[in-house]
Amino acid sequence: MELKVYGHRASQPSRAIMIFCKANNIEFEEVTIDLSKGQHKSPEYKEINPMGQVPAIIHGELQLFESHAILTYLASAFPGVADHWYPTDLVKRAKIHSVLDWHHSNLRRGSAPYIFNARLAPVFGLPLNPQAAAEAEKILISSLSTIESFWLQDSGTFLLGGNQPSIADLSLVCEIMQLELLDENERNRFLGPYKKVQQWIENTKNAINPQFDEMHGALYQLSAKMGKQ
Amino acid sequence: MELKVYGHRASQPSRAIMIFCKANNIEFEEVTIDLSKGQHKSPEYKEINPMGQVPAIIHGELQLFESHAILTYLASAFPGVADHWYPTDLVKRAKIHSVLDWHHSNLRRGSAPYIFNARLAPVFGLPLNPQAAAEAEKILISSLSTIESFWLQDSGTFLLGGNQPSIADLSLVCEIMQLELLDENERNRFLGPYKKVQQWIENTKNAINPQFDEMHGALYQLSAKMGKQ
Repeated sequence: MELKVYGHRASQPSRAIMIFCKANNIEFEEVTIDLSKGQHKSPEYKEINPMGQVPAIIHGELQLFESHAILTYLASAFPGVADHWYPTDLVKRAKIHSVLDWHHSNLRRGSAPYIFNARLAPVFGLPLNPQAAAEAEKILISSLSTIESFWLQDSGTFLLGGNQPSIADLSLVCEIMQLELLDENERNRFLGPYKKVQQWIENTKNAINPQFDEMHGALYQLSAKMGKQ
Repeated sequence: MELKVYGHRASQPSRAIMIFCKANNIEFEEVTIDLSKGQHKSPEYKEINPMGQVPAIIHGELQLFESHAILTYLASAFPGVADHWYPTDLVKRAKIHSVLDWHHSNLRRGSAPYIFNARLAPVFGLPLNPQAAAEAEKILISSLSTIESFWLQDSGTFLLGGNQPSIADLSLVCEIMQLELLDENERNRFLGPYKKVQQWIENTKNAINPQFDEMHGALYQLSAKMGKQ
């Protein structure tokens, strides 16, 4: 049964899905929906995801959007996926759900609007919005602080004291990688105070390379291009 | 193994957890964390949930917060829960996750801040905030419209064309029930255009009564009290 992943490598949840597939040898067809060209708002794409957002998948009869729902589905539906990604143990699984749900109202709500309003808006033909950026910055800093002091409080290489990455590590690190679009001083201003967060990002990259860096290539290029502008 | 549910009946996700337990004959001790007295920010409660939010549970060694994570855990860990709440079928389960994830960035982000900033803030000693309410209103209306036209598009009594309620119906309807805190004209202004949404709320109440109305008693009382002020 063929799997199609609709996404854009500049989109953090799209990368999370595609990295997950590559790291677990799940074959898929990558269908690029170019956000900078507004393809996610086209009538054709809205047949796939009426919300007009990436990522989305089609697998057999199933059309699915929301990246966390996709990750849990893929981890459950493809038999070769190692247990650490989405453990069958109910307590471990519950805690991973807790991180993923927390993410929606915290890191995601800080990071994505900050990057957009402080840096990325002109790519989409919109003006920067310093007030919206300032509000998002507060949520971003608070979220990084919570990851450092709470989600990474247990000894271990990954969130929740894990020794191997879960879909929560993948989702959250892909989100934070979006800070690559800031200049180095600004990125350091955000990440500098959080040593455990920095180490965890490195741990996650190392555990999922070469797939991690391969999927972030477009982001690194965009970052370099924006640095020159 | 004893289950403790920390929550407040004025909190929509707290009600969802407690209704779920009662409807499924899951015994629990209800520990009231009175939001109007700031008990969710007390050092004692932050030992239970460092985020200072309700609900949270303790079940054996497990401390867990985030209401969707709690609902999926309870549905999986207690053997008597009927399958329709959180189906084992991977495709049905994936779609329920999709609704629950969508909820975080849409209905929840519209309804909760609208009610708070347009109506509830004085209960917490804060002023009303018409600008924040206006922004939240847009998200609330857009979310109700999406539920009407997309999540309820299939023939059926519940979300996704289901004939029995899932944890997604329970979570979203408990959120919408918060509109009881508005006066009747205003509630009608929001819900009036959405006939399927109105019917679905009734269907959910009817399917989960008497537990649904029992757990909403405090909300109905608060609504009546606010109406007199």
